[in-house]
Amino acid sequence: MNLHEKIMSDVLDLAKKGKGNVSPNPLVGCVITKNGKVISQGFHEKFGEAHAERKAILAADKSELDGAELYVNLEPCCHHGKTPPCTDLIIESKIKKVFVGMQDPNPLVAGKGITQLISAGIEVETGILEKEAKFLNRAFIKNITKQEPYVILKMGISLDGFIATSTGESQWITCQESRKQVHKLRAEVDAVLVGKNTAVLDKPQLNVRHIDGRDPKKVIIDSHLKVLDKSEEEKSYLKDAIIYCIDDSKALENHFIDENNIKIKKLNEVQNRPSLNELLKDIYSNEKIGMLLVEGGAELASSFIEQDLADEILIYIAPMILGNGKNVFAGFDAKQLANAKKFEVINHQKIGDDVLIQMVK
Amino acid sequence: MNLHEKIMSDVLDLAKKGKGNVSPNPLVGCVITKNGKVISQGFHEKFGEAHAERKAILAADKSELDGAELYVNLEPCCHHGKTPPCTDLIIESKIKKVFVGMQDPNPLVAGKGITQLISAGIEVETGILEKEAKFLNRAFIKNITKQEPYVILKMGISLDGFIATSTGESQWITCQESRKQVHKLRAEVDAVLVGKNTAVLDKPQLNVRHIDGRDPKKVIIDSHLKVLDKSEEEKSYLKDAIIYCIDDSKALENHFIDENNIKIKKLNEVQNRPSLNELLKDIYSNEKIGMLLVEGGAELASSFIEQDLADEILIYIAPMILGNGKNVFAGFDAKQLANAKKFEVINHQKIGDDVLIQMVK
Repeated sequence: MNLHEKIMSDVLDLAKKGKGNVSPNPLVGCVITKNGKVISQGFHEKFGEAHAERKAILAADKSELDGAELYVNLEPCCHHGKTPPCTDLIIESKIKKVFVGMQDPNPLVAGKGITQLISAGIEVETGILEKEAKFLNRAFIKNITKQEPYVILKMGISLDGFIATSTGESQWITCQESRKQVHKLRAEVDAVLVGKNTAVLDKPQLNVRHIDGRDPKKVIIDSHLKVLDKSEEEKSYLKDAIIYCIDDSKALENHFIDENNIKIKKLNEVQNRPSLNELLKDIYSNEKIGMLLVEGGAELASSFIEQDLADEILIYIAPMILGNGKNVFAGFDAKQLANAKKFEVINHQKIGDDVLIQMVK
Repeated sequence: MNLHEKIMSDVLDLAKKGKGNVSPNPLVGCVITKNGKVISQGFHEKFGEAHAERKAILAADKSELDGAELYVNLEPCCHHGKTPPCTDLIIESKIKKVFVGMQDPNPLVAGKGITQLISAGIEVETGILEKEAKFLNRAFIKNITKQEPYVILKMGISLDGFIATSTGESQWITCQESRKQVHKLRAEVDAVLVGKNTAVLDKPQLNVRHIDGRDPKKVIIDSHLKVLDKSEEEKSYLKDAIIYCIDDSKALENHFIDENNIKIKKLNEVQNRPSLNELLKDIYSNEKIGMLLVEGGAELASSFIEQDLADEILIYIAPMILGNGKNVFAGFDAKQLANAKKFEVINHQKIGDDVLIQMVK
């Protein structure tokens, strides 16, 4: 790792501080150096607030910026969004050289910010830790190119692939540390999604406990709104939830829904279930959800796998053998090895007693 | 890690060079230092040959040994086995101090070697990297205390716990690198064991290919000697195998067995299968097998799990999802989480595309 990469690595660490607060904006950090010394830094802290470059430039002593070098993991913006263009500010500040991690993936702007800087006489070097920069903003890249949320599928299983014993016992297969880490993850994503069975059986709060962090939105898929059949007390966990169904007749004149700020949304039907493709489009465009965590159960997880809708998989494997039970993706059947859904392992680590395997498509 | 631990770490690395050649003897390395300088070293190279201490002492310049320090991962022997006692040689050589990794686990000798050295005026320090020393010789410890082989169960599975698709396809779930590593493992164990189904269907050669190394012994469990029903050509892989059965009638007057040096052994029956406990006792005491690798299939692996006979499990997990198929331990059913067979993860690593999880009881 050369000096520029070392600084870009610090930029990426800074960018990570925005996790959970900037989506669907990208995670961006910025470091400004002069004569080999860091003179200022900043990161994008909150959706709608100042970009990292602006934060860093405004935090610096203005006289020092003349001839300085700026490091940023994502190409500076050149368009008016919620904030004015960063390129203008960089040019005004008389920065000499800009080091960029990756281009803006938005097909409409890709490269234009860099071109603008070069036209203004600023030296630009791109692709510093590009792979790492792209990985950090993998959700943003999908958002901007596909207009869909980045989907993380998380499951906890026994060593032999079960989420429950043959008699249905499932609490708890994975260890406490693994479960705690999931709460950390919830604080980083925009919404958590579960299927009807999980909702009815577990009444999951889907909020952030055990650690500090903001709660994600709650999303439930329930074709015929079975979750509403319960008593008021039993369904109190539905407060503020978004429920996707194919038949919303139970929602009509249901005051519980209004009182608890529940949003019921009807989708077209695909094989007797709400269309997941439609759900992803709606959740991104109308609910502003850039990162979606799918937490099960097995049927919902299987649908995401079968339809190739999971961008990333997190499997917490408990080192215990059950022999038989409920298979984690039992709703899917590859039949032949050629049809198996294949992923690439990008990380494996011990979490308490368990092993976490992180994979991408 | 202090200086003594650093040297003991080198001793353990030396000891490892004996892997595959010393069982059921322990893996032992030895380093001799004087005035902080290594003057000699040695390791136990082959079953029946000189111990590590003897190798190191004989390799040293005799005059230098007076006042030297000796490091060995296992307590020096004080009894006449295939070689004379190492303690005598250490005392004669006028070594001043001995650093020991772990005591000899043999209940009949534990500590006596050390006592003998101390009585002769030699300073002894024990427990240097004891945990690592015990792990290296975990097979030897089980051999000497239980008179049974150390059993490693190896399976290759999909991410969701299958060894074959729902249509029976199984070649290949794990990647080439994983399969190659299994050949390395075969060269280190004394024997490889498979069940009848695997033998009949796969006709596995169970030898070492792709790498240099000696072949392990081949052991097959086949209650009614079905493997003998095949044509001469089809069963040629049985050469030099040991087959355990409960009904050996097919073996009588079967010249194929004699010509191919096949050993047929009859065991008592437990639930219509040969007793695995008896098998382990026989294989250790009469066949001199200290490390046994169980390579499947699912039924045999399940029996080892159900009867708590696997000391160590190696699971190669391919990052692919099958949804349904043949579960890896389908012959077992914990029914309740309380009955799950639990292990401790001691290692996880990426092998090619796969993740290997290594566990002990």
